[in-house]
Amino acid sequence: MRIGMLTSGGDCQSLNATMRGVAKTLYNELKDVEIIGFLEGYKGLMYEDYKVMKPRDFSGILTEGGTIIGTSRQPFKQMRVIGEDGFDKVAAMKKTYKKLNLDCLVILGGNGTQKTANLLREEGLNVVSLPKTIDNDLWGTDMTFGFQSAVNIATEAIDCIHTTAASHGRVFIVEVMGHKVGWLTLHAGMAGGADIILIPEIPYDIDKVAQAIEKRTKEGKRFSILAVAEGAISKEDAALSKKEYKAKLAASVYPSVSYEIGKRIEEKTGQEIRVTIPGHTQRGGSPCPYDRVLSSRFGAAAAKMILDKDFGNMIGIKNGEMVRIPLADVAGKLKMVNPDSSIIHEAKALGISFGD
Amino acid sequence: MRIGMLTSGGDCQSLNATMRGVAKTLYNELKDVEIIGFLEGYKGLMYEDYKVMKPRDFSGILTEGGTIIGTSRQPFKQMRVIGEDGFDKVAAMKKTYKKLNLDCLVILGGNGTQKTANLLREEGLNVVSLPKTIDNDLWGTDMTFGFQSAVNIATEAIDCIHTTAASHGRVFIVEVMGHKVGWLTLHAGMAGGADIILIPEIPYDIDKVAQAIEKRTKEGKRFSILAVAEGAISKEDAALSKKEYKAKLAASVYPSVSYEIGKRIEEKTGQEIRVTIPGHTQRGGSPCPYDRVLSSRFGAAAAKMILDKDFGNMIGIKNGEMVRIPLADVAGKLKMVNPDSSIIHEAKALGISFGD
Amino acid sequence: MRIGMLTSGGDCQSLNATMRGVAKTLYNELKDVEIIGFLEGYKGLMYEDYKVMKPRDFSGILTEGGTIIGTSRQPFKQMRVIGEDGFDKVAAMKKTYKKLNLDCLVILGGNGTQKTANLLREEGLNVVSLPKTIDNDLWGTDMTFGFQSAVNIATEAIDCIHTTAASHGRVFIVEVMGHKVGWLTLHAGMAGGADIILIPEIPYDIDKVAQAIEKRTKEGKRFSILAVAEGAISKEDAALSKKEYKAKLAASVYPSVSYEIGKRIEEKTGQEIRVTIPGHTQRGGSPCPYDRVLSSRFGAAAAKMILDKDFGNMIGIKNGEMVRIPLADVAGKLKMVNPDSSIIHEAKALGISFGD
Amino acid sequence: MRIGMLTSGGDCQSLNATMRGVAKTLYNELKDVEIIGFLEGYKGLMYEDYKVMKPRDFSGILTEGGTIIGTSRQPFKQMRVIGEDGFDKVAAMKKTYKKLNLDCLVILGGNGTQKTANLLREEGLNVVSLPKTIDNDLWGTDMTFGFQSAVNIATEAIDCIHTTAASHGRVFIVEVMGHKVGWLTLHAGMAGGADIILIPEIPYDIDKVAQAIEKRTKEGKRFSILAVAEGAISKEDAALSKKEYKAKLAASVYPSVSYEIGKRIEEKTGQEIRVTIPGHTQRGGSPCPYDRVLSSRFGAAAAKMILDKDFGNMIGIKNGEMVRIPLADVAGKLKMVNPDSSIIHEAKALGISFGD
Repeated sequence: MRIGMLTSGGDCQSLNATMRGVAKTLYNELKDVEIIGFLEGYKGLMYEDYKVMKPRDFSGILTEGGTIIGTSRQPFKQMRVIGEDGFDKVAAMKKTYKKLNLDCLVILGGNGTQKTANLLREEGLNVVSLPKTIDNDLWGTDMTFGFQSAVNIATEAIDCIHTTAASHGRVFIVEVMGHKVGWLTLHAGMAGGADIILIPEIPYDIDKVAQAIEKRTKEGKRFSILAVAEGAISKEDAALSKKEYKAKLAASVYPSVSYEIGKRIEEKTGQEIRVTIPGHTQRGGSPCPYDRVLSSRFGAAAAKMILDKDFGNMIGIKNGEMVRIPLADVAGKLKMVNPDSSIIHEAKALGISFGD
Repeated sequence: MRIGMLTSGGDCQSLNATMRGVAKTLYNELKDVEIIGFLEGYKGLMYEDYKVMKPRDFSGILTEGGTIIGTSRQPFKQMRVIGEDGFDKVAAMKKTYKKLNLDCLVILGGNGTQKTANLLREEGLNVVSLPKTIDNDLWGTDMTFGFQSAVNIATEAIDCIHTTAASHGRVFIVEVMGHKVGWLTLHAGMAGGADIILIPEIPYDIDKVAQAIEKRTKEGKRFSILAVAEGAISKEDAALSKKEYKAKLAASVYPSVSYEIGKRIEEKTGQEIRVTIPGHTQRGGSPCPYDRVLSSRFGAAAAKMILDKDFGNMIGIKNGEMVRIPLADVAGKLKMVNPDSSIIHEAKALGISFGD
Repeated sequence: MRIGMLTSGGDCQSLNATMRGVAKTLYNELKDVEIIGFLEGYKGLMYEDYKVMKPRDFSGILTEGGTIIGTSRQPFKQMRVIGEDGFDKVAAMKKTYKKLNLDCLVILGGNGTQKTANLLREEGLNVVSLPKTIDNDLWGTDMTFGFQSAVNIATEAIDCIHTTAASHGRVFIVEVMGHKVGWLTLHAGMAGGADIILIPEIPYDIDKVAQAIEKRTKEGKRFSILAVAEGAISKEDAALSKKEYKAKLAASVYPSVSYEIGKRIEEKTGQEIRVTIPGHTQRGGSPCPYDRVLSSRFGAAAAKMILDKDFGNMIGIKNGEMVRIPLADVAGKLKMVNPDSSIIHEAKALGISFGD
Repeated sequence: MRIGMLTSGGDCQSLNATMRGVAKTLYNELKDVEIIGFLEGYKGLMYEDYKVMKPRDFSGILTEGGTIIGTSRQPFKQMRVIGEDGFDKVAAMKKTYKKLNLDCLVILGGNGTQKTANLLREEGLNVVSLPKTIDNDLWGTDMTFGFQSAVNIATEAIDCIHTTAASHGRVFIVEVMGHKVGWLTLHAGMAGGADIILIPEIPYDIDKVAQAIEKRTKEGKRFSILAVAEGAISKEDAALSKKEYKAKLAASVYPSVSYEIGKRIEEKTGQEIRVTIPGHTQRGGSPCPYDRVLSSRFGAAAAKMILDKDFGNMIGIKNGEMVRIPLADVAGKLKMVNPDSSIIHEAKALGISFGD
């Protein structure tokens, strides 16, 4: 068998562990298998930029962050767009697939990547995909790999901020990754003991945020910590059209939302604000043990799909068991935080404010 | 309301986070609530050794390992046994409960603790319990708090061993906690990339273990790493009666199983063996973010049971949601690793040997 | 004896460990000693806001970040300024000292704090001080406590960025604390394997920075990492007067220098830039073992000065040994990175660019 | 130029970082340089087992534990011993050196390794060496690389034990590496807040150890933690001849000293004891930032010695500056903890017992 493999979209901590899982299982179960690693995501597939992998390439990478075959962002929207030079991306990917005589393509990625994977499936390629994202927003799986590692890093930032906030008596904002969904901010915020959590799914009222801070001040607490998602949005802004909001963001002088939220809180409460942007550190470093186990299981289960010649699915985890979810069902859907879910109610019971 | 609270059995990382979850929710939801912390587990309840807790006692403990009210091991077997001095433990506990006019007892603990909690329920006390153990062996819940933190520590030990093993070309044994069940060893072993995993549920054949090591040597790999549970058992020993095996262990000159397994491997393969015993470090340190979120949710959900006056249950998590499991169902059952489960098959597909 | 104690200025990780060192030694060596903790730095001394400490207050804090007695910034410049309400800060501090009948004041802080400590010494108070700062810029000591802990956090950020930078092929800036001196950026940059390090002591030429990045690109390296001090300054800006530069900074739309440096690099090289601001996380979390040993030694040695009634000194470390440095020598001096020192030459030999 | 390189003896965390420092500097400063990596220490030099290194081999290894060229223990004592097969080790090493036409040999190692390096120097080879050891026992340098990383791991073990010890009220022993010297145990013990520290340089009296524990119990402290070096020795045993003591150790049923010390304490105090053996984890994992900076500096400075053709020295650090120490001075000397040094007095002032 000849298997292509690629990692696409924003990177995360457990990509290598997942590829290792697929590869180790294939090498163990098949006498004759060759794995082709396409470099920098779909680009490598388009432009025939690849490396013939050897078993030792997958050795010792369980704990390595990043991806040994590189990645790049290739927006799904542009996949069908023919370039000025007449370059047809989809046709090129199909051509590479045929030319290399591949039996299957193993694709690791998030939402955009899964959409393109589904497109390739529709175009007749054998595709097996795996759910990568620190955002945990992929439909059809309880958990994505990368998420818990990112939670750890964001939480560590909040932990560090805790001691300094307590010493000085200040308000701190830790900006957590997540433009569209708030899973990462919610979990890191709860784990870090944040007092206020702002996520895209629950638009905030800046007055309620200020009140939550002032309530703490009145109770004699010298500091407050906010975990704010990159995509946190005020009630006013949530009422705007998508286009209007984009224009507003583009016109902002602030490099990210937290600076603006900080300024508004400062105006309302008169308290000193400090902003921390852990940024891309949240995608980096060694995967946590949870992710390594999950990735190893995902990898073994994805390899099993290949052995079964059961193509066109993304591997996922449901209730602790590996499941195969048709790509047609996954593509284009987003798993968001439900503002009325039990975890939100539990967080509120603990006294956390969502500014709503 | 007046709530008693105690932590019993071997400690773990997220006890304080869990108690904080219960307390914060109760303080938020009830105008008038007093929490009594019994010191050193059931002993405090027996001997009226307690502390009236204040809200600030539960502040800042989300990240603190250990338990702010202490713990001790009080074997379930001896609960009904009357002491030489005529001391009746169960009667004493009931007496304290009545005397302090408690509305409910919140109990955090593992298997033995849950059995005693059930006994107190049978004796008519209002009991709410929470699943604490690094072993993850409590029936009725997908996950216990403490487990993932312990996985992290055991994995870190294996990670460290990896670099030194690779440098020297040696066989290393890392002994992981778990006398009866192998969840911790299984997860840490998979996360750490162990080559061989020995757990109580899958008795090993020392020849197969030696073969797995020699196979690696033949493949040019300079080292092998074994993750061995404290309760790892050979096929011969598994055939003994419980009594015979206990006698055998008691007669052993080795402080723990790994030293003996190491010696036998040395004899069979002629390779140099090194043993590492992380021991009680696996119970210690700050809880990992995963456990802090789980504990916070458990705490909030247990408080909700109290508010609902729904007593006699242990809180658990099933498919991501909080569930209430009758203590009568929990008590006396053990959740073990099924040697025929998918995770074991996945681990084997990855090339891990279980010595069977 | 009756000893006052205070922590002043920006907090750091090992303040508690240091106070514990002083306190444990005093309690061990003296039969009769009382420690008064002034709250929130010099403010507590001015306004008689204090707590009578007990031995158990200093127990278990070796590993705790922050400061158990709080801190605040009290600019040295304003110490002699009489408030509108006629409040004389220095007189107030002296009054508290006399009123409480103190034998000595133990002061933990950085540059500004040491200046005020020296002022109090000049005013006739018995003062013993300890060198706290993540900046390592105190004159008279090879090392300050807090520095190595901060190096660890900043390095961890660079480590995380490494894996994501390598995956995507991008230029990353990690902004490290340090407005006036570059020790933290230099050490974290070297430890994290940064390709370019920009510090206040070595003004940069943006063209040289761009060239260093492009050189790497030409060599086939897909990414570059810059460790940039908060106080990094271009050659042009370094030529401005202090006043002009302050005005320029104040007029900038960017919340910190890295965003502007990033934009200029983007313009020059056309490469995608990402900025990470670990910010106050660098002051937070548990002190690293190095700092705990250093703080314990500092604490014991400061207590020894008290026992010897040798006042008016800051404790420091020189060539591994504890030394007593007259406050009069310390106050107002800054220990900066010498651009011609051996560590800079070593860093350059390793291929690191300083943009000069 | 043609440079040979080898790592010998027990591995540690910062070997790769050091080799990278040497290599990066040589590649930067010399147009034409080739580095030969001998595999598994002196064995590779003896048996011509080597790999021609390329610049990219040294890329990305700053943070990697272990050694990319392997190591092995080659006792100095046997270097001059001719094998039964007539194999002359020293002659073989010289032959390889000449055959490969090497200009210099870069040797990374501890005490034994430095002795052999000196032997090779005496035999006329150009040798440059670097001080590797977690023990920090090399004469002539204030610090060895590997030491601070090992301190971190041992301290983390003690930190974890702290929370569990406090919860249960028990006596814990953490056995720290170090057969001959106690630097690692001393630093980890101080950093971890151990109550009792036993090191080879200060023979202990088991009664004094028991008294120190009982003193704590009387003061109401529920637990005690001992940091015990592998080479901790009682006053009685210290009075034995070396030969007698070796025989005694060999006859012991205990795999390491801590088990025996634990048993004796149990007998004397009646308290429950638990033993933890972090073992080889102390040599493993990623080097800490301190070690990475030190190793980078050592590497650059060692390369400078080569460029200067100044052979026959070990690089070291004295008062923060790189120094060149003649191998003839280093070989055969041990830097031990002085029981009368200031750090020991400071530790005792803090209340730590050394059992003396």
